[in-house]
Amino acid sequence: MDNNIRTDLAVEARELYKEGNAGEVPGVEVEDESSLNVKVTRVKIISQEGQQAMGKPMGTYITIEADKLRDRDMDVEDEVSRVLAKEMVALLKVDKDALALVVGLGNWNVTPDALGPRVISKLMVTKHLLELKPEYKDSGLRPVCAITPGVLGTTGMETSDIIEGIIEKIKPDFIIAIDALASRRMNRISTSIQIADTGINPGSGIGNYRSALSQDVLGIPVIAIGVPTVVDAGTMANDTIDMLIETLMKQSKGDTQFYSVLKSMDRDEKYNLITEVISPYVGKLMVTPKDIDAVIDDVSRIIANGINISLHENVTLEDVNRYVN
Amino acid sequence: MDNNIRTDLAVEARELYKEGNAGEVPGVEVEDESSLNVKVTRVKIISQEGQQAMGKPMGTYITIEADKLRDRDMDVEDEVSRVLAKEMVALLKVDKDALALVVGLGNWNVTPDALGPRVISKLMVTKHLLELKPEYKDSGLRPVCAITPGVLGTTGMETSDIIEGIIEKIKPDFIIAIDALASRRMNRISTSIQIADTGINPGSGIGNYRSALSQDVLGIPVIAIGVPTVVDAGTMANDTIDMLIETLMKQSKGDTQFYSVLKSMDRDEKYNLITEVISPYVGKLMVTPKDIDAVIDDVSRIIANGINISLHENVTLEDVNRYVN
Amino acid sequence: MDNNIRTDLAVEARELYKEGNAGEVPGVEVEDESSLNVKVTRVKIISQEGQQAMGKPMGTYITIEADKLRDRDMDVEDEVSRVLAKEMVALLKVDKDALALVVGLGNWNVTPDALGPRVISKLMVTKHLLELKPEYKDSGLRPVCAITPGVLGTTGMETSDIIEGIIEKIKPDFIIAIDALASRRMNRISTSIQIADTGINPGSGIGNYRSALSQDVLGIPVIAIGVPTVVDAGTMANDTIDMLIETLMKQSKGDTQFYSVLKSMDRDEKYNLITEVISPYVGKLMVTPKDIDAVIDDVSRIIANGINISLHENVTLEDVNRYVN
Amino acid sequence: MDNNIRTDLAVEARELYKEGNAGEVPGVEVEDESSLNVKVTRVKIISQEGQQAMGKPMGTYITIEADKLRDRDMDVEDEVSRVLAKEMVALLKVDKDALALVVGLGNWNVTPDALGPRVISKLMVTKHLLELKPEYKDSGLRPVCAITPGVLGTTGMETSDIIEGIIEKIKPDFIIAIDALASRRMNRISTSIQIADTGINPGSGIGNYRSALSQDVLGIPVIAIGVPTVVDAGTMANDTIDMLIETLMKQSKGDTQFYSVLKSMDRDEKYNLITEVISPYVGKLMVTPKDIDAVIDDVSRIIANGINISLHENVTLEDVNRYVN
Repeated sequence: MDNNIRTDLAVEARELYKEGNAGEVPGVEVEDESSLNVKVTRVKIISQEGQQAMGKPMGTYITIEADKLRDRDMDVEDEVSRVLAKEMVALLKVDKDALALVVGLGNWNVTPDALGPRVISKLMVTKHLLELKPEYKDSGLRPVCAITPGVLGTTGMETSDIIEGIIEKIKPDFIIAIDALASRRMNRISTSIQIADTGINPGSGIGNYRSALSQDVLGIPVIAIGVPTVVDAGTMANDTIDMLIETLMKQSKGDTQFYSVLKSMDRDEKYNLITEVISPYVGKLMVTPKDIDAVIDDVSRIIANGINISLHENVTLEDVNRYVN
Repeated sequence: MDNNIRTDLAVEARELYKEGNAGEVPGVEVEDESSLNVKVTRVKIISQEGQQAMGKPMGTYITIEADKLRDRDMDVEDEVSRVLAKEMVALLKVDKDALALVVGLGNWNVTPDALGPRVISKLMVTKHLLELKPEYKDSGLRPVCAITPGVLGTTGMETSDIIEGIIEKIKPDFIIAIDALASRRMNRISTSIQIADTGINPGSGIGNYRSALSQDVLGIPVIAIGVPTVVDAGTMANDTIDMLIETLMKQSKGDTQFYSVLKSMDRDEKYNLITEVISPYVGKLMVTPKDIDAVIDDVSRIIANGINISLHENVTLEDVNRYVN
Repeated sequence: MDNNIRTDLAVEARELYKEGNAGEVPGVEVEDESSLNVKVTRVKIISQEGQQAMGKPMGTYITIEADKLRDRDMDVEDEVSRVLAKEMVALLKVDKDALALVVGLGNWNVTPDALGPRVISKLMVTKHLLELKPEYKDSGLRPVCAITPGVLGTTGMETSDIIEGIIEKIKPDFIIAIDALASRRMNRISTSIQIADTGINPGSGIGNYRSALSQDVLGIPVIAIGVPTVVDAGTMANDTIDMLIETLMKQSKGDTQFYSVLKSMDRDEKYNLITEVISPYVGKLMVTPKDIDAVIDDVSRIIANGINISLHENVTLEDVNRYVN
Repeated sequence: MDNNIRTDLAVEARELYKEGNAGEVPGVEVEDESSLNVKVTRVKIISQEGQQAMGKPMGTYITIEADKLRDRDMDVEDEVSRVLAKEMVALLKVDKDALALVVGLGNWNVTPDALGPRVISKLMVTKHLLELKPEYKDSGLRPVCAITPGVLGTTGMETSDIIEGIIEKIKPDFIIAIDALASRRMNRISTSIQIADTGINPGSGIGNYRSALSQDVLGIPVIAIGVPTVVDAGTMANDTIDMLIETLMKQSKGDTQFYSVLKSMDRDEKYNLITEVISPYVGKLMVTPKDIDAVIDDVSRIIANGINISLHENVTLEDVNRYVN
């Protein structure tokens, strides 16, 4: 089963499963929680069976969804930062002085892939201050360091090798890795944030640069934060065709014959066929919001704010909005 | 007939016509010319009938296509600059001292729409030098001025009003307007350049900001230079489905029933249906190359070089590569 | 008298006069007003004599100074935006529906000169909305349009010609022009804002691109808003030498001989000498803050916020911080 | 002796010594070589005495100077790239398959400090290709990887720690480190390149972020490439005053008294005094070219080209200009 080829989001892997099967995914527990503007879904993969069905490693995947983010309302943005911080604190079982290394994955120079580096640029980095300036002692600040390792194509090195090397030298207690993701649903772009305690595992993402950054590989806890910023072109065509068929059926244009033909093709078969016919382009093209520059700017601030208030005991969102941004 | 809703390129309007009709478009003359790397197509709309069939005003539309531009080979890029210059000189029937106003349309801050402003930033601007410094007299330089008027959403003004105001004051003899276009073929993105003596007329483009910039409106000749940098998402889905059906038929998966259903829908009906089903997203999404930043950088240099050598008698591509870029 | 060669700020022209003369400048009235964080100085040049002594046209020059801006505290930034709005409203004697054209002077691509264009990018532009969307009627929004005309070196056109052309076409009722200035005091950089009802007159500025934008030239009121972002290298050397001499005297290193020699040179003579000895470089060099990118970002937001709340009846700073930035 | 506080360039440390002393610096050997456009000076510090006098570690410091770089002539730029490559090959005594790690020091977001990261963005990175694609075997390409580690203020980590960690993991055979430097001569900015086999040692630089990157620390050869992009404000004032005095003496304005006073102050005393009087600002200000963005763009290409052709056996400058940039 290769769902992870088509989505980085556990909620979408689950959707894919449920399209083809009745009931909840075996070995998976799901919790929902909603406020007026924000919906939180916690998907826990608790067994090998669940791992198999979901195509993702065992662990907790929290998705924060807020359609209103599309309107760029700063109130909703602040609420999402607070929810992000709350969920991270719940996942992060670390001492308040534990050293954090925040890793901004992705490519500075490709806007939809620049989420990680942009978050780093808005982060409160404190390790050097706490070491150099005694007055910061007992300031309620946690030691935080950060790196933007770049991508395989520009460094020639596996990102995991760079991070492992830094870990050996700096000895952080845990890692937060931020990355831009690919979604299979156009309406999730820039409105969903996934937090996972399983770290980052090779998947589609935007580039193919991502090597695994997980506790197994690095030996310390790795929290991954991801936001869908692009849709794979093949996926988009696929979804469009499905929507088209449904609509045609409703309008009872087209007959059972027609329906049966495409129904008879299983999803992967159809996806592979589509990918094949558009392959000369699909590798070079992406589907992304027209205002992607502004979107990345907003979402990176939302995430940086969430991280800043979750990592430092005495830092409030007001402080961050006033003195950091 | 609303082809111009879906393409800014005359060669594509022609393709659309020929899909549904046998023979050449009535009232249209076509010339082809090819070298190893570059193909030139000159489409002349010479009658009301042609205008009707093409959904574009009468005039000459020259398309320069070079697939190798995708490989970013500087030899091919230089060749395209030279071809662009040659075709412009043929279209431009102006005195060698005639004052040129070059207009860079589009939005600086949206990468795929930034082609125009980027070209202006690489342009040899000489009007002020020729006026202020006598030593430039007889230097073989033409007086050239340039403006990036911005877009309706950021200026609150119609671009045509801004340009008309400047024309009244500066009195240029002709205008060259550069703009990013939308294509209906994914493989034309960043590999095709269209030059038209009809100026720019309201169409899809990338934004909806464009007001007409034509000789009728402005009273002086207007040469438009455009490059497709995005594909409309609906168009892409449509093309994908067509490719899919063809492939299915070849593989004789699917039966005549299946084929007939979609065949029975006429193109516009199908397009409108698709646009409708993806409408919640299509307005917000674009399909563009993953390396769009690099693409815009290259293409804007190619066009600026072409303009620079076509406007100034004594300026060669070597000069431009060495002293301007 | 050519003080305006060395400073764009009326408060500095006044300082220069008072260095050489006792008492207030004749033909000049001055008002001070201070809060904890912000100092406002209103210099009114009310006679030919004052114009002569100050080297600036008759009119009102308001300087807002806030040293704390150096610390990038958002509370102080908001206070400065409010003061800026209050002072502008006092200077602007216009109907609440009068059409505003905001002009962002300077060069996008030279960071210390990019203040004007950056302000425009953060501005609430409403003219097109009020025309196209009836629902905005009686929304308390003023019609505002905006332009970034570029600089002589990149357009080949005098900025005043571009603006005059647009005015003839668009017919705004008044103009607000934003520009980066040169200061003769290093400590004023990025901490002072000058508002003047005399518009913009040829002066040092950062580039030499600036043609006059004033009511005499344009026929409508012109409010100029400027912020010092660079110090002229010659000026800085000059100030340093003066500080050095003072210090030497205090430390009674150096004798009256020494002092008298430099004292005997009048200020302009000394300045010209310095400019001469460093002339091979002074033209190419600027003195600017190391964090100029961040400074321009902050100051442009402060000014855009001030303009946004001063122009639109029903817009508060909270609205702007939440929904515009 | 603290010359290295005021200059990163060995040629300037030598000038400083010779101002106060007759003859060549003891323990230092100097070679000159000039072409029409490019001057090469090789300063070899060969003894403890030389190290003492120069305030720099023993080793070879090669300075390439080309005033014409100010005119941005691509012919001269290419010549400088070739000279840079030739000098590097002479310093680099490594096997043709030895793995290179290129380190781009400095801060992406502060233009005059962005030289290192910009060079990396133009570099031919090959390590991953040589490992993944057998067809590159025997292509005459050397394995090259690259990193932009950021600065202490944004990472919270010492740059040397990051690099040491990566070295332990990746095991490169040698390092090339690129950094922006501070010069004490305004006319050297962007026209001089220094190559040193002593690596990078704590010094003024632009920021204070730099920890030592040398063979002693890292255990492998480290070639440092630096270009002056700023002048320290105190240095500039100092130079200006010296130029001023000379001029005054020539013009026999001022008497021996005057001269003797400043002559009687030794250089460091005067410098410290100046730094003190302008200290409130000097920390926050830099003196840099007005067209610094364009300068960094050009110089980073010159250096990247030089590195690309020096590291890869079969790569020519023509290849690089055509296929890399």
